[in-house]
Amino acid sequence: MVLVSPRNPLNIGAAARAMANFGFSRLAVVAPYAPHWREARSAIGAPYLLQNAKETESLGEAIADCTLVFGTGTLTHRKPEQEVISLPFLPARVRQELAQGGRIALVFGPEKHGLTRDDLSWCHALVEIPTDQHQPSMNLGQAVAVCLYELATRAFPDSETAGTAPQCGSGPPVPASRILDTLGDLIQQVMIAADYSPGAMQSANRHDLRLLLRRLHLSATDTRRALGLFRRILWRLERAKHPGP
Amino acid sequence: MVLVSPRNPLNIGAAARAMANFGFSRLAVVAPYAPHWREARSAIGAPYLLQNAKETESLGEAIADCTLVFGTGTLTHRKPEQEVISLPFLPARVRQELAQGGRIALVFGPEKHGLTRDDLSWCHALVEIPTDQHQPSMNLGQAVAVCLYELATRAFPDSETAGTAPQCGSGPPVPASRILDTLGDLIQQVMIAADYSPGAMQSANRHDLRLLLRRLHLSATDTRRALGLFRRILWRLERAKHPGP
Repeated sequence: MVLVSPRNPLNIGAAARAMANFGFSRLAVVAPYAPHWREARSAIGAPYLLQNAKETESLGEAIADCTLVFGTGTLTHRKPEQEVISLPFLPARVRQELAQGGRIALVFGPEKHGLTRDDLSWCHALVEIPTDQHQPSMNLGQAVAVCLYELATRAFPDSETAGTAPQCGSGPPVPASRILDTLGDLIQQVMIAADYSPGAMQSANRHDLRLLLRRLHLSATDTRRALGLFRRILWRLERAKHPGP
Repeated sequence: MVLVSPRNPLNIGAAARAMANFGFSRLAVVAPYAPHWREARSAIGAPYLLQNAKETESLGEAIADCTLVFGTGTLTHRKPEQEVISLPFLPARVRQELAQGGRIALVFGPEKHGLTRDDLSWCHALVEIPTDQHQPSMNLGQAVAVCLYELATRAFPDSETAGTAPQCGSGPPVPASRILDTLGDLIQQVMIAADYSPGAMQSANRHDLRLLLRRLHLSATDTRRALGLFRRILWRLERAKHPGP
């Protein structure tokens, strides 16, 4: 589980408590507000998983070894750029990914405004908790508890209510987020080398590219092939610009 | 929803927030700690349902018009005296009761120790949230959110994931908690009139009687018949003791 820039130490504690309640142990925290993060970690009764949390500067780093990344949030004020999954339908997707040997991350945004558009570009899909339209926005600790309850009871082979779901163990392996990012870097270099994108466009291009690479659901093999192809293209383009002796 | 003796105003606020998130509106609060209850109700952004909450002295009063009452808690330190339902299986029971025109209450205990044995004697069943054995005890606001999420998404005919469940609309009507309590009073009077129970035993008897009457799942008709029978018995017993002219 990943918390992006959490502010309130009580919410950090509540999120960690819910993880312990439902048997989750791996927590990463992205760019936390330092004094509050220290306070939450040193609180009496803070679970072991909070003291052992991974701290990173960026979301990309936190989810580098994951194969399927879900952002969370409500859709009140934005139009999502990727697939939206209602929470009750999340366990089926998670079961499928785990059966293929994947690693999953669930990402929660800061209390005030939730995940940004840039944060969401690292996610394969957006998970929405079905809430009442008059009060759609949930407290962070409660949103974490609800999501982890749903996964703990229905997403794992030994979950009490997951028994009847089919296990699809034969899908192809998928690449970790880090590999997709390497491919994104390479494609961006190719675009620049090919003078495809004016400088001012690069940040927007990178955002769309990140979304595209996740939307494609490339297999690990396809990703390797694409990396090989774009490395070759880049080499050709650079040799054409700076011909050797 | 019923909160029994909540202490922390933040938890009361979080419980009310979760109710608003999942579209629940009727809250009763039993014997709250007055200063904290005032604070929670007057908090900025306190939802309407908190300002409109019903306040009662006893749990029996709070659930008087309900036909099916669920207590919540973990079983770590006690042996339950009634049926235990794991939360993922609660929606099916709730759907069935609602289809029969019943009224349901979900009861949460105080933060420190949860519902007492006496509180639970008012409940038809105990709902358990399936948590990790190393950290079974949940924060009140998070427990409320998880339970209401499960009900909102799966217990109502228009819930997104409840569609396929069978609706059993033909069961007999069941009596409200208040009627069962009247029957319990009457049976206790009969016991005393019949010298069945020594004075010292009365409190324990009342507890077991409350549990028994709820375990029987009497229909409204059966309850009326039992009331008639015990009224007749009581009248006979008292006439035998104090024969008229």
